Formats: sequence, structure tokens, C-alpha cells
Amino acid sequence: MGLPKPLAQDVSDCGRGRLNLITDVPGVTVGHFTLLDGSVRTGVTVIMPHDGNAFLSKLPAAAHVINGFGKSVGLIQIDELGTLETPIALTNTLSVPAASWGLIGYMLERNPDIGDTTGTVNPVVLECNDGAVSDIRALAVMPEHVGAAIGAAGALFDEGGVGAGAGMICYGLKGGIGSASRVIHTGGEAFAIGCLVLSNFGSLPDLLVGGLAAGRILAHREGGGNAPSGVSLEDATCGTERGSVIVVIATDIPLSDRQLKRVCKRASVGLARTGAFIGNGSGEIALAFSTANCVPHYSEGCFLNLRQLRDDLLDPIFRAVASAVEEAVLSSLFHARTITDRKGRTVMCLADAARLACSETKGGELSDLMERLGMASP
Amino acid sequence: MGLPKPLAQDVSDCGRGRLNLITDVPGVTVGHFTLLDGSVRTGVTVIMPHDGNAFLSKLPAAAHVINGFGKSVGLIQIDELGTLETPIALTNTLSVPAASWGLIGYMLERNPDIGDTTGTVNPVVLECNDGAVSDIRALAVMPEHVGAAIGAAGALFDEGGVGAGAGMICYGLKGGIGSASRVIHTGGEAFAIGCLVLSNFGSLPDLLVGGLAAGRILAHREGGGNAPSGVSLEDATCGTERGSVIVVIATDIPLSDRQLKRVCKRASVGLARTGAFIGNGSGEIALAFSTANCVPHYSEGCFLNLRQLRDDLLDPIFRAVASAVEEAVLSSLFHARTITDRKGRTVMCLADAARLACSETKGGELSDLMERLGMASP
Amino acid sequence: MGLPKPLAQDVSDCGRGRLNLITDVPGVTVGHFTLLDGSVRTGVTVIMPHDGNAFLSKLPAAAHVINGFGKSVGLIQIDELGTLETPIALTNTLSVPAASWGLIGYMLERNPDIGDTTGTVNPVVLECNDGAVSDIRALAVMPEHVGAAIGAAGALFDEGGVGAGAGMICYGLKGGIGSASRVIHTGGEAFAIGCLVLSNFGSLPDLLVGGLAAGRILAHREGGGNAPSGVSLEDATCGTERGSVIVVIATDIPLSDRQLKRVCKRASVGLARTGAFIGNGSGEIALAFSTANCVPHYSEGCFLNLRQLRDDLLDPIFRAVASAVEEAVLSSLFHARTITDRKGRTVMCLADAARLACSETKGGELSDLMERLGMASP
Amino acid sequence: MGLPKPLAQDVSDCGRGRLNLITDVPGVTVGHFTLLDGSVRTGVTVIMPHDGNAFLSKLPAAAHVINGFGKSVGLIQIDELGTLETPIALTNTLSVPAASWGLIGYMLERNPDIGDTTGTVNPVVLECNDGAVSDIRALAVMPEHVGAAIGAAGALFDEGGVGAGAGMICYGLKGGIGSASRVIHTGGEAFAIGCLVLSNFGSLPDLLVGGLAAGRILAHREGGGNAPSGVSLEDATCGTERGSVIVVIATDIPLSDRQLKRVCKRASVGLARTGAFIGNGSGEIALAFSTANCVPHYSEGCFLNLRQLRDDLLDPIFRAVASAVEEAVLSSLFHARTITDRKGRTVMCLADAARLACSETKGGELSDLMERLGMASP
Repeated sequence: MGLPKPLAQDVSDCGRGRLNLITDVPGVTVGHFTLLDGSVRTGVTVIMPHDGNAFLSKLPAAAHVINGFGKSVGLIQIDELGTLETPIALTNTLSVPAASWGLIGYMLERNPDIGDTTGTVNPVVLECNDGAVSDIRALAVMPEHVGAAIGAAGALFDEGGVGAGAGMICYGLKGGIGSASRVIHTGGEAFAIGCLVLSNFGSLPDLLVGGLAAGRILAHREGGGNAPSGVSLEDATCGTERGSVIVVIATDIPLSDRQLKRVCKRASVGLARTGAFIGNGSGEIALAFSTANCVPHYSEGCFLNLRQLRDDLLDPIFRAVASAVEEAVLSSLFHARTITDRKGRTVMCLADAARLACSETKGGELSDLMERLGMASP
Repeated sequence: MGLPKPLAQDVSDCGRGRLNLITDVPGVTVGHFTLLDGSVRTGVTVIMPHDGNAFLSKLPAAAHVINGFGKSVGLIQIDELGTLETPIALTNTLSVPAASWGLIGYMLERNPDIGDTTGTVNPVVLECNDGAVSDIRALAVMPEHVGAAIGAAGALFDEGGVGAGAGMICYGLKGGIGSASRVIHTGGEAFAIGCLVLSNFGSLPDLLVGGLAAGRILAHREGGGNAPSGVSLEDATCGTERGSVIVVIATDIPLSDRQLKRVCKRASVGLARTGAFIGNGSGEIALAFSTANCVPHYSEGCFLNLRQLRDDLLDPIFRAVASAVEEAVLSSLFHARTITDRKGRTVMCLADAARLACSETKGGELSDLMERLGMASP
Repeated sequence: MGLPKPLAQDVSDCGRGRLNLITDVPGVTVGHFTLLDGSVRTGVTVIMPHDGNAFLSKLPAAAHVINGFGKSVGLIQIDELGTLETPIALTNTLSVPAASWGLIGYMLERNPDIGDTTGTVNPVVLECNDGAVSDIRALAVMPEHVGAAIGAAGALFDEGGVGAGAGMICYGLKGGIGSASRVIHTGGEAFAIGCLVLSNFGSLPDLLVGGLAAGRILAHREGGGNAPSGVSLEDATCGTERGSVIVVIATDIPLSDRQLKRVCKRASVGLARTGAFIGNGSGEIALAFSTANCVPHYSEGCFLNLRQLRDDLLDPIFRAVASAVEEAVLSSLFHARTITDRKGRTVMCLADAARLACSETKGGELSDLMERLGMASP
Repeated sequence: MGLPKPLAQDVSDCGRGRLNLITDVPGVTVGHFTLLDGSVRTGVTVIMPHDGNAFLSKLPAAAHVINGFGKSVGLIQIDELGTLETPIALTNTLSVPAASWGLIGYMLERNPDIGDTTGTVNPVVLECNDGAVSDIRALAVMPEHVGAAIGAAGALFDEGGVGAGAGMICYGLKGGIGSASRVIHTGGEAFAIGCLVLSNFGSLPDLLVGGLAAGRILAHREGGGNAPSGVSLEDATCGTERGSVIVVIATDIPLSDRQLKRVCKRASVGLARTGAFIGNGSGEIALAFSTANCVPHYSEGCFLNLRQLRDDLLDPIFRAVASAVEEAVLSSLFHARTITDRKGRTVMCLADAARLACSETKGGELSDLMERLGMASP
């Protein structure tokens, strides 16, 4: 929960936020609902963009589809209008309808005008496929689970295999929710930019930890007697990427929707730094919003007065996004714990995989890795 | 049900299909489920792309967002992979989750591999907001209604205020489902291209019927004693467009996903010919698929051999799309019947509005209109 | 030159501007350079976005590709940064390099910092193919012709077959430059929105004049003894559209780049109202800019304060764009004069074609057309 | 010239091509024209897509704008039609008009039908800004230099500071042209995929060589007495990225335009692996074409029969692109030589910077770097 993340080394030109979480952006909170029931291991995670009514006080927002083998909803309207008007829900691929339904229900309850005296509402639900671990065909998530996740939202939240991350696998290891943040100084003011990832992509040999080829170090010992026999490592060797990753970026820097789309595009840099190559089967989507300007649903005035950072000052922000996304992915691995999937196979967490490797072999590279993980070499 | 549509005059360079419906494309069927219950007047319409398993035999497809004030789902993956792998469901805006859920359930039932030994599935659900007529906040559509619509699918289907069209308003009149088709001769072969619209847009004064300013003729008598007092006509006068329109295009012409996207873009020409100007609040989306090539989910081969029309032969197809979309919108108006909305106001159908106008005034333009509607002037 | 344009009837919800030209937007001027030399009939038209230095004071801008069979340049950077930093030049397809070169030279001369102490500059050149009329292979436009057109820029400018429009054909008739403007009242203020088209598309039978099927009326008499034998009418009958159209929209309404892109998309409505169906071979591009906010190249501050109209107030603007674009296309036809093309064939102007039709036949529809053209029926 | 490139270590799942150049794709050739004249250091590089007439035998192609602060031309039509119909020219930003002009002239000469009996031609010119090194305001490139580059085209070609690369700076070091290729085995057949980059981006401290933080190693000694005083290193410290990068990808794998766009998107992974974060000021564009299918300009048939790889077999190709692009960037640095820029400042090449670092300090990391560069540590 907001622990220091010992993994990424480069916090280029800017420091980490206080919690090193997306919730370092004032007003942003995150909540989980985790569903563990037999072969079901899934859930819902919500990001609340501010502590008011998201429909009445919309925020400038943008999304970018890095690779569109995905089923996320709500992006068409964000592209057209440049605003976010609901909390953002994350869940498994086949539970997008349930989460959308729950989000609509939540919004209807708080806004009696929606669908009556004003228009409808655009729920935003992003997803990854946790079917390798969880019985995704069970359609176990229910609309009310969204409300439960919202009820649990706060500035502090768990990372790793919780909420929507419960059943996710990343680089053949247990993945899920990760987060990180950076502080940006611009024009004499300090701003926060934070991200939250739902990590469910990659093959183990590709994993880089702070530039170190951690995945190859860990995968080399796969043939050993105690090797985890999980689907993930098998997938890794076949070189096919079936997973996905969602990146949500929040900031209080005054950025327009166009600029936020530019910010989204830099998420792919952070992902590449962890070893990703954007597989064919990956649903990779980044969504960003800014809390600096508000677009009211109702207004007496005809015009908005918006503050906007100059584009030629965006570079430190782009660097911060790349750095924070890299760290958030690693943080999702760092905070996850080893589980057993729906077929009884072990899906190791990064720490356990590293410990197991240490028990079998010793070597300079492995020591490097252990050090970066903040773990003692044996 | 597949009646001759007397409205559009220009069937440029090509004739109408036998039924003059989207189902003139071999294999395509359409089914409705209509939900009428107190203040609820809504439903589901499904377009079955072929009579096989859409997941196992995917079809080249593309979508185009004309205006993105909408909540349709499934377009991200179509953009990335260029294929359709489920039936297409249409419903009201807030019932997109229910219809998606139902579509997923239908696919899971028929494909035990989905989410188990293979990936997930991408449901395609398109929507318009029928909240002016129906209590959309009731979230009355249930997942099983998708199955009911699929069960009712056939080559012959009703147009007007049925299925997803039950509560739709178009040009201030009762709208809903409309369809038309054209025959294209290319390279010594005859092909069909058909479209189905869910019409829910426009202000009455804007309506054009075959180039005739029908809306202005009808709206001019609005101040008269027997004027319909519906929300629609009020909306019309305020000039704000809150509606939406969905256009689904099917063809057996061998077109690639890129070419199908080009085809989608010509839907806007047909809409403009009926008087549309693409309002701010409109969710206008066109989706096209071709049955000529199949992309199998499983295959022993590594390569597909695809047949593709030359781009420089597309003009007759573009003309046909513009013409068929125009006619389909008019057909939705022509087949709808007058209803009472959730607040007790009358939403007139085109025929009744024309009759009422005739009872009040007589004149050359009105006679023209009646003639185009195939109605006798009094 | 800024004459009243008697063609379009619907000036929906708003009046025409004083000149009924794009130059009704304060600061905008237009200039032509026309090149008539043997079989060469081409030129350059420039739109000056304001009377200052466009590089130092950039304007919010956006472009939309309706159909991309075109070679316009400068749109990539407009999409990324949302700003215009040079005058806009129009010319023939193969002279885009010459016009770009000229535009760069013009900017370098006025900005010694470009390419030295600051970055480069993004010339915007839009084009249509006038090869049916003019010897386009001669590459006759020279860089200095851009300067000549800029030197001629003013609030009053010719329409029809001048500048870049010298060799253009539209609906089989002589086309070229057309312009129109509308006044918008919003929030207690009056704004102008104007457009300028370079018309070079369409087949004669498709032409609509204010909803009237003018093209069919004129084309029906084609078999007569005095029929013009131009390439245009032949093209018309073969149904293939090889031309293009450029639409430039200017306004002083405070709109963001995202909103300006939305505005661009409504240009296609105006085109469709004149009978267009967006042919395969057409390069159809709309570009819009707003003079209401300025993005300075150099600034001491880090933030811009931008005024922006609410999106839900855009409908009157969308209507105005559709109406003004329709009128601008008709104005290009109305102001053009009959010419002889590079192969000695006559390309008739609309007025001559109408007069010729009248000399052969008489009828109600033709009278209607003559009336709309402000011409006396014989 | 096609030397083994000792830099990248990961040639994932596939070997390098014979020349390890883009010209390993059969039919593809590359030629340079370099212009060195006082303060001018620039040029033109052309990629010939096959040895026939590119206009008559078009190739499926696609482009992707990673960041659009750029002035490349020709992409609109590629997006619409999915084909390439000219050689690809690379040059400096302000010489795009000259190179376009030259390319048009070259095509007109070989195709007397263009602009006469058939349509026009779409020249493709991509660019980076070499203004830090070369007097870009001189507009020194002339149209005929394109012909000179085409005349010099062959399977073997120089890398580094030649042709369009003459004045480019990459990661604060001398950059320019780099190339690499991979062999892909699919469906029992062997295919080639190659890329060519024009590298002109990045700040020195960001440079990664095969995962090693080479830039930081080299930049740390910047304060030393012999530090290069080039603009590049100053830029590096200010963290602003003003450069650009162009990536051209060729393959004989049968891929559709949609698939080629997906391939283009993976170029960003290779760039990120060298340390890029996609700066605000960067014009980053990837363009890919496939020689496997041909789209003839003239044809008696109405249909094309196209072979297409299944999308679920794309992962090895995506990996190969990421790997080859990374190696091509490093190769551009590896082959460049130290120069003096237009203001007399030294722009060091990677090898000289490494040697200089060795002469000052010794250490493990530096030895690692020298080893990867194939250079002996002192």
C-alpha cells in the first residue's frame, strides 16, 4: 500500500510523489473489490477522478489505443468531446458489461436528471483478460461490485493481485495493479502526475527490471527441478503474447484533451522499458485525465476559460510518464503474491521466482536483480 | 416487412434488391425483440452476419465514427483486426451493458473454447438514446432479450418502431428501424449491398424526402389547433439535435477492411440527403462487413487468400450506399406508427403528420409529398 | 467579388456576413495569382489567417480528411499541435512542391530565426487536380507565385476560375474558387464564420442547386445538337469522380483544435447538399482555424489562457458551416466563366449551360433553376 | 556499407539478413546524394521499393505518425488507398518541396500518362531537421538531387552521415542513416524484413546501447577538459528533444495495409530501446511496405487476389521490427564520423566519444560499452 518501490532507478528530472501512487494527484482515489471463489479470481478496481460528481464536473481527458485487441468501452465519446464524466472501472474482459451496468447504476442513482431531463452517461470500463488464471466464463463480476469498489476508494490502496488485478499475469509472473507518481515543477508551481496500470502482458524472457534482463535470468533456470509449471512460463517460450495492459494517467497539470492524448502515447515508452513489444493479442490502452480544468455539465455561461500548459514545455511530463509507467508495471510485479491458477498450476510472483533462482544458482546478475528488488541475496 | 419503399427516387446506376432490405445480402438475417411495458418502449435488434458461427468464421469489417457522442462498443477491436466475430446488436444507450452481456452469453454457449482454450470474444453493440420516449433509466433490457431477438431472426423483418427502434424519434417523427438494398454489377457478377439504420436524429424542419423539404411543409402547420404537442416538435424548433443514428452496411462484394471503412464514410452522404447536419449531441456510427471473404479463427494454414475489388471500381458502391442509407432512413419513418411517449405526448409518424397537414391545408408541395409517400391527397 | 450569391436558400438560423466571403472573419484576407499561358491554366490562391506574422502568432487549427486521394501537405503537424503557423496556399496537385517552396521562402524572409535559433516551419498547401483543363505536367507554378498571391491579398477577392481555381471543373462545369460566410450570435456576441472552397469534383447529373436537381435538368439536353462536348460531361456520364475539393473554414468564435476538427467534419454535409457522394478519386480535405485565441511562438509565461465555446452550443455553428459550404460551392460555379481546356474542348460555366438549356427547351424545372440563378427565363 | 553491426544483442527468434540492411528484401535498393558545401551539410536518400515502375506496380503500404511535429508528405493518400506508388525520398525538413519536386519530375519522365490520360502521382518524402549542423535556410537541395540519389541506388549503401543523414544528430552524437534486417520463417517459407532509419533525435544521457546506459557513461565525463562542446551535448543537458526520426520498413512477407500499419507501430518499441521517450519536438514517422502483393495501376480484371499472413502469426514480425529498428539506430551512430557543425562546433561520433571517455577514465561499464562497440579498451 503505497510502499516505496525499489525497482525503477531513473526518476528523470523529477522526484516521486509522496505516496508514489496515482492518488498523489489531489482528489484522485482508488478502490478495489476482489472476488475469490473457487476457480474464480477476479475483481473490479475503480479510479475516482475527483471527490465531486464526475457527471456534473467533467474533466478533460483523452485515450490512446496502443494495440486494439481489446474490449474497453467509453473511448468513442472521450475522443469526440475530450471529457471524462464517470469514475473509471477496470475489470476482466468478459465482465465489462457487468462493470458498465454497475457504473451506469451508480451514476443514475446520483444524477436523477440523466436519461430524464438531460442526456445519458458514458461509462468508462477498461479490461484485461484474466482467463488463464480465473474462470472468466463464469461471468462472476456483478454490477453491484462496482459500488463496492467505489465504497472502498481512498488515497491508499493495495497493489499487486487485488481488484481487477486479482487474476492477471504479467511477464509470466503474477501481475495486476501497480502505481507510481512523479512531481513536475513548471512555471513556479509543483504538479503531480501519477499512473495506475493493470498489468497482464509479456513473456518472462522479455522482462527488464531497470534495464537489467531479469526475465532471462529467471527463465534460464526454468528447466530445473523446481521450475514453476505455470501456463505463463509455457506461454513465454512460445513467444506469443496474449495479454493486455491498461494504463490510467492522472495529473493536475493544466493540459487539454489533445495534450492528454500526447501524454497517453508516452505510456508505450514506459511499457517498452519493461520489455514489452506490443504483441498482436494485446489490448493496450492508455487513458489520461487532468483535474486542472473543469467542464461543467450545466453552466450559465457560454464560454469556458481554460488554462493550458505550452506544448514546448511537455518534455519533462513525457519523461515522467515513461518513468512512472515503467515503475508502475514493476510495482505490480513487486506487490503481487504467488497464486494457483484455475487449473492448479502455480503462478509465481517476482519475489518468489527470484528467491527460487537464488536457491539454485548464484551469480552476479542475479545479485544485481536481488538488490534492485530490495531482497537479500542468499 | 420488406415492402416496396416509395420514398427515395434516385436508385443511381443500380436497382434495388429483391426485398429491398439488408437481408438481400445472402446469409444476413435480422431479428427484433420489442419491450413495451408501461413507460418502457424499447428493445433489441440483431443483425446476424451469416448463418454459421460468427466467432469461428469471422468477416472483414470496419466502422466509422461520424460523430462520437455515443456509447457503442466493440469498435476498437474491429479497427485493429478488421474483423467481426459476433452478431451485431442494437439497443438503447443505457442497455448496452445488458445487450453486451447477452451477446457474450450467446457466444459462450456456442463456443466452449472462448475464455478457456482460446481468447475472449468482442461483442458489438450499437445504440441510440430513446429516453425521450421510453423510461431509459429503468434499464429494462435484459441479457436474455438478445437471445430472443436472435431467435426471431430471418430474412423478412419489420421496420419502423420495433426492436431497438421501438422508442426512437427521427426528425421529430416516430423513427426506428429502416432498411434498403441495392444490386451492384461488377466484373460480370451481381452483388448485393444493404443497409439497416436505427434512426433517432434530426429536427422536423430539416427533413428532406427525395429532395423535397417535407419537414418544413409539415412544421409550418405546427401552430394549428391539432398540432402534435410532442417533445419532438419542440426540439425541432430549438434547433438542438440530441439524437443519434446507427448505420449497418452488409455486402457480398469482396472488400477489405480498409475499403469497408471507406464504404462506411459514405453513409454520411445518405444521412445528409435526408436533411441531417451531424448535430453535436448525435452518436452517429456506421459499421460495414463483407461476407465475401472469411477469416477463420482456427486454421492449419499460415496465409489467407483474399479476393478484393479494385479501389477504382468503388464509385458505384459509394453511390449505392448513399442512396440506400437515404432510403433506409425514410423507410424507418414510413413504416413507423404514431405512439405516445413516456410523458403522454404524441409522437406522430410521418404518414399521420402528412394526413394531418392535408386536413388543414392544401397545396402543391403537400401534394408532392403525399405522392412520394404513396398516399392519396384528400 | 463578394457579390450577393443568389443560389442557396437556406441560411439557417443565421444571416450571411457583410461580404458573404471568408474575409468577413476579421483579419482574414485572400489573394490570387492566375497563370494563363497556352495550355497552362492554373494558379495559386492564398488565405492569410491574420494580418500579423503567422509564425509568431499561431492560431488554433484542425484538418479533416474526408477522402484521402490527395496530396495536400502540412496536416500532420496541425493534427499533433493543433496550430496553424503559415498562410494557407491552394494550387494544383503537381505544384504543391512549388507552392510549399514559395511559402517556406516567404516565411524564412520574415523570420530570420526559423531554422537558425528556433525550429523549422510547417507550410500548409492544399490542392486539386486541374489536369483535365490545364497542362499540369508543365509544373508551371513557381515558388515566387506564392508571394505574388500574398501580395494581392485583400478582403475583396474574385471567385470562380481564378488563382488555384483557374483550371478546376466542378459537376462537369467550370468550377474553382467560391466563398460564403455566416453570422453566429452566441453569448451576447456576434461572430463570423466563413469558408472558401476550391471546387473540382462531381458529375453534372448529380448537381443540386438549393435542393433542385439542376444537374439532371442540364444533362438531359446533352444529346441535343448544341451540347457542349467537354470532357466534363463525358466524365459525368461514366459516373467516375476524379476530382477533389478543398474547404477552408475561418472563424473568430473561440474554438479549440478539437472543436475545429468537429467543424471540419460538417463541411461534408454542405458538399453532399450540392450532390456530392465523395468519389473514390477525390481528395476532399477540410481545414479550419479560429482567430479568437493566439498561441505565441515565444512567450515568457508557461501557460496559455484560452477561451472556448461550450460544445453543447456548437449546433448553430455546424448548421452554418453546412450552409456556407453549400453556398460556396454554388458560388464557385456561379462566378466561373466558360473556358476552353487544353485539348480545345469547351468547359461551360453554369450560367451558359443554363442559357443553352433555355434556348432548347422550356419547362417548369428549368424556370425554377433560372430563378435561383437570378437569371431571366427566356 | 552493410558491415556486421556489433551493437544489438537480441536478435530474437530470428537471424539477421545477409547484408543486415533493408536491401535484404529482394528488389529494394537504396541510394544517397550528399551535399557538402561550406555550412551546408545535407542530402537526399532514396529507397526504391522494387526494380520496376512504382507507379504501374504499386505496393501495399502504411504509415504511422508516432509524433507529428514533422513535415513529411504523401501519407494522406497512403492512409486512404493503402499503396505506395513512388520511391521514398528522405531529406531535410525545408527541402521537402525540392525533393517532392524532384520525385514528381522523375515519375513524370517515366510515365507520360500521369497528369494526362490518368491521374496524378503521390510523392512520398520524409524528413528530419538538420538545422543544428547544416545551414537549412539555404534550401540547398535541388530537385535534380533526387535523380542523383536514385542513380546511385543499389543493394549496398553507406550508413552514418551520408545522404539525408549528412547533417543529422542523434543522442547528441553524429547520427544519420542506419539499417538492419531480420529473417522470418513462417509457413515453411523464409522472408526478410528490413528497416532504414534517419536518426536525428534524443539527448546523450538517454542513450542505451543493448540495454547499457551508454549515454550516461559518456555524458558523465562531459565536464572534463576535452569535452566536445557541441550543441548536441548542451541540448542533452537541457532535456529538450528537438530532433526527429524516420523509420522505413520493407518486407516481402504478404501483409495488408492494415497489418503494415500495425508493423509501423512497433517501430516505437525499437526506438524506446535505444532510450527515446518521443519528445514534443520530434517528428517521428514510420512507413512500411510489402513487396509480396502488387496492386497494378492498370488492370483488365476487376478483382485482386491477395495473399495475407494471419494476424495471429504477427508476433515474430513485431519482435523482429523492434529489434531491427533498435539495431538500425545504433548502426547509424556506429557508422557516423565526427564532424564540425555550421558554427564550428564538433559533433562527435559514438566511437570517438567512447575513445575520448576511455582516455580519461577507466571502469567496468566503459569496458562493457567498448566491447559492445567492438572496440578495444585501452
